[in-house]
Amino acid sequence: MPRIQSEDEGRALRHTASHIMAQAVKRLYPECKLAIGPATDDGFYYDIDKGTSFTKEEIEAIEAEMKKIVKEGLPIERFTLPREEALALMRDEPYKLELINDLPADAEISFYKQGEFTDLCAGPHVANTKLVKAVKLFSEGGSSGAYWRGDVHNKMLSRIYGTAFPKQSELDAYLKAREEARKRDHNKLGRELKFFTTSDIIGQGLPLLMPKGARVTQLLQRFVEDEEERRGYVITKTPFMAKSDLYKVSGHWDHYKDGMFVLGEEGKDAEVFALRPMTCPFQFTIYNAEQHSYRDLPIRYAETSTLFRNEDSGEMHGLIRVRQFTISEGHLVCTREQLKDEFKGVVDLIQFMMRTLGIEDDISYRFSKWDPNNRDKYIGDEAVWEDAQREMREIIDEIGLDVTEEVGEAAFYGPKLDIQAKNVFGKEDTIITVQIDFALAERFGMTYVDTDGAKRHPIIIHRTSIGCYERTLAMLVEKYAGAFPVWLAPVQAKLLPISEKYSNYARETAARFKAEGFRVEVDDRSEKIGFKIREARLERVPYLLVMGEKEAESAAVSLWSRAAGDEGEIGADKFIERVRKEIKDRVR
Amino acid sequence: MPRIQSEDEGRALRHTASHIMAQAVKRLYPECKLAIGPATDDGFYYDIDKGTSFTKEEIEAIEAEMKKIVKEGLPIERFTLPREEALALMRDEPYKLELINDLPADAEISFYKQGEFTDLCAGPHVANTKLVKAVKLFSEGGSSGAYWRGDVHNKMLSRIYGTAFPKQSELDAYLKAREEARKRDHNKLGRELKFFTTSDIIGQGLPLLMPKGARVTQLLQRFVEDEEERRGYVITKTPFMAKSDLYKVSGHWDHYKDGMFVLGEEGKDAEVFALRPMTCPFQFTIYNAEQHSYRDLPIRYAETSTLFRNEDSGEMHGLIRVRQFTISEGHLVCTREQLKDEFKGVVDLIQFMMRTLGIEDDISYRFSKWDPNNRDKYIGDEAVWEDAQREMREIIDEIGLDVTEEVGEAAFYGPKLDIQAKNVFGKEDTIITVQIDFALAERFGMTYVDTDGAKRHPIIIHRTSIGCYERTLAMLVEKYAGAFPVWLAPVQAKLLPISEKYSNYARETAARFKAEGFRVEVDDRSEKIGFKIREARLERVPYLLVMGEKEAESAAVSLWSRAAGDEGEIGADKFIERVRKEIKDRVR
Repeated sequence: MPRIQSEDEGRALRHTASHIMAQAVKRLYPECKLAIGPATDDGFYYDIDKGTSFTKEEIEAIEAEMKKIVKEGLPIERFTLPREEALALMRDEPYKLELINDLPADAEISFYKQGEFTDLCAGPHVANTKLVKAVKLFSEGGSSGAYWRGDVHNKMLSRIYGTAFPKQSELDAYLKAREEARKRDHNKLGRELKFFTTSDIIGQGLPLLMPKGARVTQLLQRFVEDEEERRGYVITKTPFMAKSDLYKVSGHWDHYKDGMFVLGEEGKDAEVFALRPMTCPFQFTIYNAEQHSYRDLPIRYAETSTLFRNEDSGEMHGLIRVRQFTISEGHLVCTREQLKDEFKGVVDLIQFMMRTLGIEDDISYRFSKWDPNNRDKYIGDEAVWEDAQREMREIIDEIGLDVTEEVGEAAFYGPKLDIQAKNVFGKEDTIITVQIDFALAERFGMTYVDTDGAKRHPIIIHRTSIGCYERTLAMLVEKYAGAFPVWLAPVQAKLLPISEKYSNYARETAARFKAEGFRVEVDDRSEKIGFKIREARLERVPYLLVMGEKEAESAAVSLWSRAAGDEGEIGADKFIERVRKEIKDRVR
Repeated sequence: MPRIQSEDEGRALRHTASHIMAQAVKRLYPECKLAIGPATDDGFYYDIDKGTSFTKEEIEAIEAEMKKIVKEGLPIERFTLPREEALALMRDEPYKLELINDLPADAEISFYKQGEFTDLCAGPHVANTKLVKAVKLFSEGGSSGAYWRGDVHNKMLSRIYGTAFPKQSELDAYLKAREEARKRDHNKLGRELKFFTTSDIIGQGLPLLMPKGARVTQLLQRFVEDEEERRGYVITKTPFMAKSDLYKVSGHWDHYKDGMFVLGEEGKDAEVFALRPMTCPFQFTIYNAEQHSYRDLPIRYAETSTLFRNEDSGEMHGLIRVRQFTISEGHLVCTREQLKDEFKGVVDLIQFMMRTLGIEDDISYRFSKWDPNNRDKYIGDEAVWEDAQREMREIIDEIGLDVTEEVGEAAFYGPKLDIQAKNVFGKEDTIITVQIDFALAERFGMTYVDTDGAKRHPIIIHRTSIGCYERTLAMLVEKYAGAFPVWLAPVQAKLLPISEKYSNYARETAARFKAEGFRVEVDDRSEKIGFKIREARLERVPYLLVMGEKEAESAAVSLWSRAAGDEGEIGADKFIERVRKEIKDRVR
């Protein structure tokens, strides 16, 4: 998304716009109570207690009133009050009273006033309402629901979203880009293309992959598993739950319990289980099932592994914020001497994956270190952390990776190399991590017999090669706006006979393609050919093959390709050869 | 396992042996209290309260005492007593008192007496202890633990297992067969071959597939998914948990709650989830994500689906009785007119799978019907059940399947065709089921628009094509005693250079094979070639390729095959061609 003003200016402007919105609401609906109204990265919102939600029409009226307030050119003044006076001023605003009461005793309590409207606020704001030249509220579907303080036990308030810019042209550019992004948004397009669906009675954060989404995921999974096998990985298949005992050894019970789904209650049930949030201790158990020697190392374990995270309902989003996901998980067990080469091998594999998917230019690298001022969050002592971080820095430099450093973003057992990607709305997320772990092998009693006969603890690299399959699917939907490369397309070609007379020819040709392993469909409904073509194009099918008398006579098809448009007649054999090569080379 | 006597005679004999064991225990350890001691399909046991377990030596002493009792030739007499007298007779046996008190008021209370020993027992027994000519107690590892009445809240008793036959030669034959079976037992051999392992801190019934077991499972899964795709199935990938709301609609909350892992508590937590014991409602949700017409049917959904069953710890066994398993799940949605053809297609697919795995002669078919005298167990009314069962019977007759009928074994929503298989110990289990369901489409609001424009409920076939992958792996380990067919073998060939000098040639040749997609390993340790061959044979590798000077010079290998033994020199090209064909044809 374009960022037109500087970060701080923009934020102050949008924050003022949120006050203008609250002022407009109070003018039109004086009985409303105000909760909070912050600026966000590219907009603002205000949570309002109106008893009911706002309709589209009401939000449009509020926007009109806001434009009046902007025209009024009200100067914005900041002032502070002692606690008692602050409480008296806000006596009709119960949410503001709660906020004031929660402030520490020595806090400065500040207010911002514009015209007749005053709000409890830490600022900053711009100097005058007239600076908010361009404003837009998002009224489609009315207001959203939001619990007071994000807590489901509290009252549900009405949230109105908007954005603001210092110029109309900037707002227009933003809205246009937003519209483009929305068209690609996997949470919209992914549903339209029937890649996935969700269900209220199944629950939030638990998407269901429909046949097309499941097929793409299967293709990705096989691609990853085969490439890993080629690179010397062995696979495991381990259970998705374990007794709490396991997580006590791993440290997750102390460091991550709130993020896990727990079955049963300690002290009450004979056995307490938890769904796993990671695969590490399961693959460590596989390692420990036999005594290894230095000759066995490195061992590269991979698993297409399903994990669970107990996140709040409110945080769920499409295929990206979910409670269950499947990841190309893996752990490399090696000696200290092998660490650098193994780490480089992992980065090489990841870069190969990103190139093959065509997203190598959309990612950046982050070196996530521990926070030595917050040691409770980590296991292992300082020397070990510094050692692991030095090692990782050296490797990063040797590979020549361009990384940003981030203190406090390490895993609790070691530093990470994170691969970051932005979604269509500009939001950055970690999609892949690689970790060096000097701590857990000891905790889990993992050893190898060294050349001198002594038992030593190996080093572990935690890694994923492609990340979560759900997130990868979402990224690809947005990257390609649903128009998947041929090797990944759920339907690679659609055969469209121009009338019923050529249905048989279409079916015979489809059977030939299927024997080649191509994913094809025949559309022999008695619809007009133009209609069938339009529909197939909306589905982003790479190849449309129209067939009538001429084509049937010469064992050919009339080819329309997504890349080049109308390509005229082509022999079925030629077409097979072309698609076969495209699949083999994984052409984007 | 051989069954030498008739079922009833053998059972009476083994039941008498259990009394003889109890008599011997009372002679040697008069303080012991007796619980129950039934005959089983091929042996007997007695649960005894001794305070501690029995050691191997103690069990051997009991067996010696039993042989004395047999020699004593004690006649066995049956008598009955009124309740009060029965209680008086058993006053020193608290478990017997509990059993008597639980008998209905009008029950006949019978006893069996042999010499000084009398036991509460319904019989039948043989006439004299001397008829138990051959008896054997299983003393390895001492006695087993068993809760009184199988309830974990009760006291843990000591269970001693044994078997008995009317002739020593029959016992010998039985013990030999048992020893053979034990060697093939997947729970022993599967661990020795490093197919799987288990872990106390992860929990019972949660096996971990090690690289070899995971590889076989991956091969099976791809084979199944590809064959299903070829037969017109589409795949889904749906979440492993859902809110309780879903299971209330499906009926599982009422009919199956105890078998599910539940997360959270109703009335306490905002959202209660349960791990899924089946995939049906998830695939129904996929169906319901769009409006279908009669043109879309049949739709054949398949999913490699992980399910969870909350079973007692005591019931867990290897890869067969587990708490989490992955199944080739699927649901066919069709019209009434399509039902027969679709059902036949499912049976054809299953038979193809069984033939390919080489177990078509090890299975039998069972037609599982509802129990009209126990209607609470089912949903749907009588007419619908009779209709579904008539339909299934017709299909079974048309295919010409040889089925046994079993009343009361239906699913709660419809009748089943079960495919039964026996494990090495002769224990029969259902490995595959196909169900006709006239009920759930209505419950889930699944419809299609029919030719006349009216919305109708489709019929659903619930099916699996190969069953659970864990169980299939266990069956194959036992069937082939670990010697998997080439296409499924986790390691297809092992390259054994006779000395370090030929390591390079071995590695180059291995690289050629890997490029073909073969799974090969090089053993270039500096061990004697004889030792390396013996080790590889124990791993049941189909092909051993020995390579020295002669082979290196002519780009050949010396071939030892599991099937034919020493085959002499063969060119690497020839070998590739041979294995390629074997994999393609899935030769057993």
